[in-house]
Amino acid sequence: MPSVAVVGAAGFAGALCAAIVERHPSLDLVAVTARSDAGLRLDQLYPRHRVSLELEAFDADRVAERAEAALVAYPHGAAAPVVAQLRERGLKVVDLSADFRLERVRYEAAYGPHAAPALLGASVYGLPEIGHREAVRGADLVAGPGCYPTAALLALWPLREVAADAVVDAKSGVSGAGREATGTTHFVSVAENVNAYKVEGHRHRAELDQELAGRGFPVTFTPHLLPIDQGLLASCYVTPKHALSAADVRELFLDAYAGEPFVELVESPPGVRDVRETNLCRVCATVEPATGRVLAFAAIDNLWKGAASQAVQDLNLMLGLREEEGLGAVATTGTPAPVRAARTEEVPS
Amino acid sequence: MPSVAVVGAAGFAGALCAAIVERHPSLDLVAVTARSDAGLRLDQLYPRHRVSLELEAFDADRVAERAEAALVAYPHGAAAPVVAQLRERGLKVVDLSADFRLERVRYEAAYGPHAAPALLGASVYGLPEIGHREAVRGADLVAGPGCYPTAALLALWPLREVAADAVVDAKSGVSGAGREATGTTHFVSVAENVNAYKVEGHRHRAELDQELAGRGFPVTFTPHLLPIDQGLLASCYVTPKHALSAADVRELFLDAYAGEPFVELVESPPGVRDVRETNLCRVCATVEPATGRVLAFAAIDNLWKGAASQAVQDLNLMLGLREEEGLGAVATTGTPAPVRAARTEEVPS
Amino acid sequence: MPSVAVVGAAGFAGALCAAIVERHPSLDLVAVTARSDAGLRLDQLYPRHRVSLELEAFDADRVAERAEAALVAYPHGAAAPVVAQLRERGLKVVDLSADFRLERVRYEAAYGPHAAPALLGASVYGLPEIGHREAVRGADLVAGPGCYPTAALLALWPLREVAADAVVDAKSGVSGAGREATGTTHFVSVAENVNAYKVEGHRHRAELDQELAGRGFPVTFTPHLLPIDQGLLASCYVTPKHALSAADVRELFLDAYAGEPFVELVESPPGVRDVRETNLCRVCATVEPATGRVLAFAAIDNLWKGAASQAVQDLNLMLGLREEEGLGAVATTGTPAPVRAARTEEVPS
Amino acid sequence: MPSVAVVGAAGFAGALCAAIVERHPSLDLVAVTARSDAGLRLDQLYPRHRVSLELEAFDADRVAERAEAALVAYPHGAAAPVVAQLRERGLKVVDLSADFRLERVRYEAAYGPHAAPALLGASVYGLPEIGHREAVRGADLVAGPGCYPTAALLALWPLREVAADAVVDAKSGVSGAGREATGTTHFVSVAENVNAYKVEGHRHRAELDQELAGRGFPVTFTPHLLPIDQGLLASCYVTPKHALSAADVRELFLDAYAGEPFVELVESPPGVRDVRETNLCRVCATVEPATGRVLAFAAIDNLWKGAASQAVQDLNLMLGLREEEGLGAVATTGTPAPVRAARTEEVPS
Repeated sequence: MPSVAVVGAAGFAGALCAAIVERHPSLDLVAVTARSDAGLRLDQLYPRHRVSLELEAFDADRVAERAEAALVAYPHGAAAPVVAQLRERGLKVVDLSADFRLERVRYEAAYGPHAAPALLGASVYGLPEIGHREAVRGADLVAGPGCYPTAALLALWPLREVAADAVVDAKSGVSGAGREATGTTHFVSVAENVNAYKVEGHRHRAELDQELAGRGFPVTFTPHLLPIDQGLLASCYVTPKHALSAADVRELFLDAYAGEPFVELVESPPGVRDVRETNLCRVCATVEPATGRVLAFAAIDNLWKGAASQAVQDLNLMLGLREEEGLGAVATTGTPAPVRAARTEEVPS
Repeated sequence: MPSVAVVGAAGFAGALCAAIVERHPSLDLVAVTARSDAGLRLDQLYPRHRVSLELEAFDADRVAERAEAALVAYPHGAAAPVVAQLRERGLKVVDLSADFRLERVRYEAAYGPHAAPALLGASVYGLPEIGHREAVRGADLVAGPGCYPTAALLALWPLREVAADAVVDAKSGVSGAGREATGTTHFVSVAENVNAYKVEGHRHRAELDQELAGRGFPVTFTPHLLPIDQGLLASCYVTPKHALSAADVRELFLDAYAGEPFVELVESPPGVRDVRETNLCRVCATVEPATGRVLAFAAIDNLWKGAASQAVQDLNLMLGLREEEGLGAVATTGTPAPVRAARTEEVPS
Repeated sequence: MPSVAVVGAAGFAGALCAAIVERHPSLDLVAVTARSDAGLRLDQLYPRHRVSLELEAFDADRVAERAEAALVAYPHGAAAPVVAQLRERGLKVVDLSADFRLERVRYEAAYGPHAAPALLGASVYGLPEIGHREAVRGADLVAGPGCYPTAALLALWPLREVAADAVVDAKSGVSGAGREATGTTHFVSVAENVNAYKVEGHRHRAELDQELAGRGFPVTFTPHLLPIDQGLLASCYVTPKHALSAADVRELFLDAYAGEPFVELVESPPGVRDVRETNLCRVCATVEPATGRVLAFAAIDNLWKGAASQAVQDLNLMLGLREEEGLGAVATTGTPAPVRAARTEEVPS
Repeated sequence: MPSVAVVGAAGFAGALCAAIVERHPSLDLVAVTARSDAGLRLDQLYPRHRVSLELEAFDADRVAERAEAALVAYPHGAAAPVVAQLRERGLKVVDLSADFRLERVRYEAAYGPHAAPALLGASVYGLPEIGHREAVRGADLVAGPGCYPTAALLALWPLREVAADAVVDAKSGVSGAGREATGTTHFVSVAENVNAYKVEGHRHRAELDQELAGRGFPVTFTPHLLPIDQGLLASCYVTPKHALSAADVRELFLDAYAGEPFVELVESPPGVRDVRETNLCRVCATVEPATGRVLAFAAIDNLWKGAASQAVQDLNLMLGLREEEGLGAVATTGTPAPVRAARTEEVPS
């Protein structure tokens, strides 16, 4: 059974990686590391995850002695050197930061100089559903996509050939901002509030641009912060190159996602609550009658499909395991769920 | 001092109308009516509003004996006959429903046959900031705009001549759905959730179309439900006909709203919490560097500027009072507030 | 593999029963019934549970043809006749209502005449941890305890011999009020609010009185409604008959719960979030230095340990399965978890 | 018109003090100071308060040049030296910290050495409703009570002669923890959670003990943190020395609070939402039929009556103004409001 270390397990995404790996029937969690919480048991920080391993200070050799693979959940910039050390010691790595998601020129434009540029070419973008599955299977280093790009790309991918332009209005829960306590994550700032942020350009845009590159349509991307802990909704508004019917759109999405274990096509706009604590992305696409615009909504749990569980999905592929293993609920593809009876009433009218 | 009745004061918007009128220094609240809660004191239903008047069953004659003006907060369809009775008795009326917002053909396409079509021509759309101020001043019947159109129109109005198309992604708190308990307004449906709804066409679109009519640009409009009680944010994405700089855009907004007492131009995206329980609309407009799209965000309190306080703003104008009277906080126009220091930290990255 | 039906699967607790049974490795979910939602698939009402069975109208014969056991999640009063029909047909039953929790005289004092009094004597109170485990094992009919009594009894049980009196201040999330949309469960009533209710006497008190009967100490019980969806905290204040040290109290709790798979003793007051979506009850007991009072806090998920998962725990015992089977996280007994590092900061001071 | 400075206006309570003073018809806000945010305008930190004064670094002389009185909202310990400087310069002061609430021996037991012990004897405890009104009127230095003691004392005061013991289970919103971002105030720690804290002894207990001193009954006090921003509920359970009827209890509360402008006696348990953003304390007291215990619930807004608006109430008295001036809603005493129709439905049952 492959042995796995989680490096950076004291943050929200890393801790969840540890919890998922520990319950995974075909993976063995052998080490969890932390930068400032070493010495604590993980369940002291995160009682719900119920992982009782003690957090260690990171030491590449000690990790490599025990683990064949690692999930790295460090902040952007801090991840690259650690990943390099682990790769040198032969571990397969899924990195959850932005450090290996982008081509070098895109990375440096968004984040500045890269700490391990030699590895950039070897990395695969870990969103299997948009054409990267085979590359992930063969990879030794996979970059887990950002939470926003995961949802936005899953909404836009089936439309990539027909889109003239796209607006992505994305909304995330607070856990996406990480464990650090700041004015922004203070309960009193968030409760009963919603606002856009980083309108001058969020760095996740670079991922959208890269993955849709060559498709030749401009994408507007604006993130918003919501008073929820977990959940992310990408509401996408696409002007088609030529008129499309709702049936055309449905066809595009069925073609793109038939058989996908973690994409669930539904007939009414998904709520993030419906995918909470799953690796699922729930997608609804339709055409606005009044304008002919294509509307596509993708809901994920930002910590799961947007981070930790998607990293395990990638790791499953890299290790030759079944893609769905250890990840719980799986989509019922090909059978879009009908409208939810509990949500048909009137809303702000 | 003008005497005012609130008809339909047991709902969220009507109750708030009563509270604002009661504290208004130049208005006299003389009656509150309700359809099914008659006999209760208003503060039994809404302790926070602290209006101790008893709710009466509606009787047009009894209302007309005491009141010169009325705010009517009935559901769509139910309002028109009541408004007609009050107008026959000479009362000035602000109606908060959709019944008098639209030209007849637009109304009937969205809502079906109209109960008092003769009055439609006499009604003025009560959004003073978009060119209706003088008409409201002279009107006997004003239609309070919908909550979504209020925010969306205030964001789009300065761009009306330069827009090639627009996407409005709007997000509302639950109070917009009204006091009725439904599956949609159940706490458990809303908490930790967000979803789009009525993607096939919300009836508020007709207001946007009417008020922007002749401008010749298509508007996509999609409402979302948020886990907050009060607050509404319209995030608007406008493709300009020709390239605009951020300075151009700022100029357009300053021109449109200089001196407006209830529109506050700010330099970073507004949060709905910043305007909670005020008649203010806080607006931020900028240009997305990567695409040249104009982004305009408008935040209101859906029950205040989106309903009750805006109705009192209209009533002030109709009665020759100062527009700001009894409405609390007023914008500091011409001096866009700088970035809020408390909100500069990192968010979902 | 035992076949199980869930009767009343359209409510919050019933739907969760169905989800837990469906994922249970040693139970086979064969039918789900509903009173007013028959014909819908369960996942149309509850997408998160991902149970695709179709809800049927209840028919005792049709259920008995397929199922050896049933979980009944009907409202109080409505449950008894249905349980009687299922028992007549030989099914083992766990009933989640109050109908079989109480001795007849207590039941009728709190709820009125009983519809199936003959069955009352055959029923076992399904809280294994307070001395009922063996009785549950041998039972054909088990009454799932109320959510409030579950937490309160687990906090008070170890103190039953030493208590002179007790105050239970209990706080529950909104899901405890059920799926019905009412003024009380409206998001706008609950958000940013907290209040006590039923101070004149909640019917759950009868369970506390019965289970602590003969102990001769009076219990004050007051429920409160919180703005959370799931979670219940019982804060218990016990005057001891004679002075107890913190070590004495810890001893009592260790004695009572050593080896219990679902009771987790911790050293700092538990948060309901720590047990969310688990069958665990997290308990902390200590002595207030200033007064010598014993403080005992018990946190559960009201829909899990307070209803659905506890019903499956009972069913496991009744069917001779391992008590923990299909119920996920299990307590690490005997090793009270230390203080959570993430919660040591200052709070309202 | 008296001129007022707010010292420490960058925190939650200080900023609200500034907002209330600025809108006060008989007070003139002349300066606001801050320790680390000097140079910012207050409305950059707190847009909702709409106070556009610039925050200055504190300088006692510069404050004294302009202000006759000051509200000081510094943390415990930091307040005393600042208050001493202002008193030396002749300003009347209301201090919101704990520094002047307690007799010296109690203070030093709870907080350690005091920085300005000479002033302790001159300070008056600023809860006018429990017998301190005349002393506050004549005082030059008033200590604003803690948020928890404000609610608890208002619930317990009428029972002081009849109580044998008392349990106070108190629940506060997150704003009580202040503006500092910590693990405890992180949205993700608070959402969907509730927990007790400081069970070993919260320092607010010393205030309870002092104000109820000589009454000879022990008080258990346990604070809890709730997922709301503003609001505090004290649920008090009092064993009476001798049997009391509900009518007896009502009489005690009417005697204690008849004519009080900010205490509102109600007949059903108050919700904190009912007093949000007011200086009101809403109190309900009754007798539990099953045990004879007296239950008393007091709801306040922790930032208003629990801090900022109560400080202005004290300042009004000290300056010879009408106690209610500038403080908005006032209680309708002598007429307990009946049960709220909107809250009669079933709740967790």
